[in-house]
Amino acid sequence: MERRGVKRIVFIGSGNVATHLALALDKVADVVQVYSQHLSSANELAVRLRACQAIDNPSQVTPDADIYIISASDDAVAKIIVDISVSNGLWLHTSGSVPMSVFEGKRSNYGVLYPLQTFSKAVAVDVSHVPFFVEGSVDAVTAEITDLAHLLSSKVSAADSRQRKMLHVAAVFACNFANHLWAVADEVLADAGYSFDVLVPLIEATLAKAVDISPLQGQTGPARRGDTDIITSHCAMLSQERAILYKMLSQSIINQYKAEKDE
Amino acid sequence: MERRGVKRIVFIGSGNVATHLALALDKVADVVQVYSQHLSSANELAVRLRACQAIDNPSQVTPDADIYIISASDDAVAKIIVDISVSNGLWLHTSGSVPMSVFEGKRSNYGVLYPLQTFSKAVAVDVSHVPFFVEGSVDAVTAEITDLAHLLSSKVSAADSRQRKMLHVAAVFACNFANHLWAVADEVLADAGYSFDVLVPLIEATLAKAVDISPLQGQTGPARRGDTDIITSHCAMLSQERAILYKMLSQSIINQYKAEKDE
Repeated sequence: MERRGVKRIVFIGSGNVATHLALALDKVADVVQVYSQHLSSANELAVRLRACQAIDNPSQVTPDADIYIISASDDAVAKIIVDISVSNGLWLHTSGSVPMSVFEGKRSNYGVLYPLQTFSKAVAVDVSHVPFFVEGSVDAVTAEITDLAHLLSSKVSAADSRQRKMLHVAAVFACNFANHLWAVADEVLADAGYSFDVLVPLIEATLAKAVDISPLQGQTGPARRGDTDIITSHCAMLSQERAILYKMLSQSIINQYKAEKDE
Repeated sequence: MERRGVKRIVFIGSGNVATHLALALDKVADVVQVYSQHLSSANELAVRLRACQAIDNPSQVTPDADIYIISASDDAVAKIIVDISVSNGLWLHTSGSVPMSVFEGKRSNYGVLYPLQTFSKAVAVDVSHVPFFVEGSVDAVTAEITDLAHLLSSKVSAADSRQRKMLHVAAVFACNFANHLWAVADEVLADAGYSFDVLVPLIEATLAKAVDISPLQGQTGPARRGDTDIITSHCAMLSQERAILYKMLSQSIINQYKAEKDE
């Protein structure tokens, strides 16, 4: 099954990220092994790949692969690096929060291949649209990881550990916190007898505008207009906790554009 | 040009909402006049319609139309109702924030036709996907407005003035406030040397998940996991004002799921 010039890849982990990356890489490389603590989980992924062995013992990890990709929970990465004794080849992890230095002194060639996307096993994701961020132990390794990432996606950028952390912070604001506000909106809608669906076209239009002219330029709403009457009347309809959230976010918007005006 | 059984409609206002609604209604009804204080603005819209007169004098409003739609700024609606002496026909406004009672004692048949979408003249919107919320002075009028709304969109619901206000509050959370968090994310990304684009696939996936399983169920991130180490390290990377926002939103998420756990 070995193809000339094609990279031999081992996946350490068989979760959501590993599944999506392995399925995508299997089209352009040879994914030869999937390791998991749980053989059934390793096997579930391995059977979906062209010619891949499922393993659950660290000593079974083949020493002659080109690339080893650790897709595990943040806490588990350091332990995996110690547990597996294979040290040749290129070693990567896929975590936004774990610094590259986790490999320091334990491997020669290493780096990070971080996909900025949320994956779940059940939902198909077109990996070619996912932005990847890469970091390598030395420039030649960064170049090698960049090449690997380009096999998966056209959107590949360099990111050192600090930049990856900033990406994560940005994602917390843009996704986790925005999602929380959608949950609050959903609660308000339910009170009024509606479902979250009624707001989706408006959210999509808001996002399209943010992409088009930037979220800063695209800001609208009572706080942006400085409409304190509406702000007060909205807060009067909310529970105390939601009213505090409404006021705080309104104040943050007011400050944002006040600062601009003062510049 | 008059077609049997087809409604004759007058638009009072020629802004973004009037433009999109008039263009859509012109396919299924006769938009016979567009009124604006500024004749050039009325004309700009009228020339895009099949057979429509542009007017700028309240006394020119024809008394023999079936429906009069006021699409003006919230502040202007009450004055327009007084300025225009025509009182027969069905009178509607399109504002989320203005109560239906603005017509009370001034017209016989009246109501509200509220599209929950953001419009700009330059961007084409498929009105058939826009949710419309209707309210009428009496049930027969509500039914008439519902029929009119169904000519435009398949998504038509009833909403009294309180429900419309709740829809507006929900939209402030889901769109205005979410957009502000996207602006903060954009600022963090710029600090790290990236553009807002890198986050868009993740935002889209987050929204898709919220639609699929509800935003409450779809919540992820450090606050949802109770990962205080990450929260602390993220805040250390932010300005004081942004760190306060980060902590406050994290606390709001923690409280949300704590309340659930305690139930």
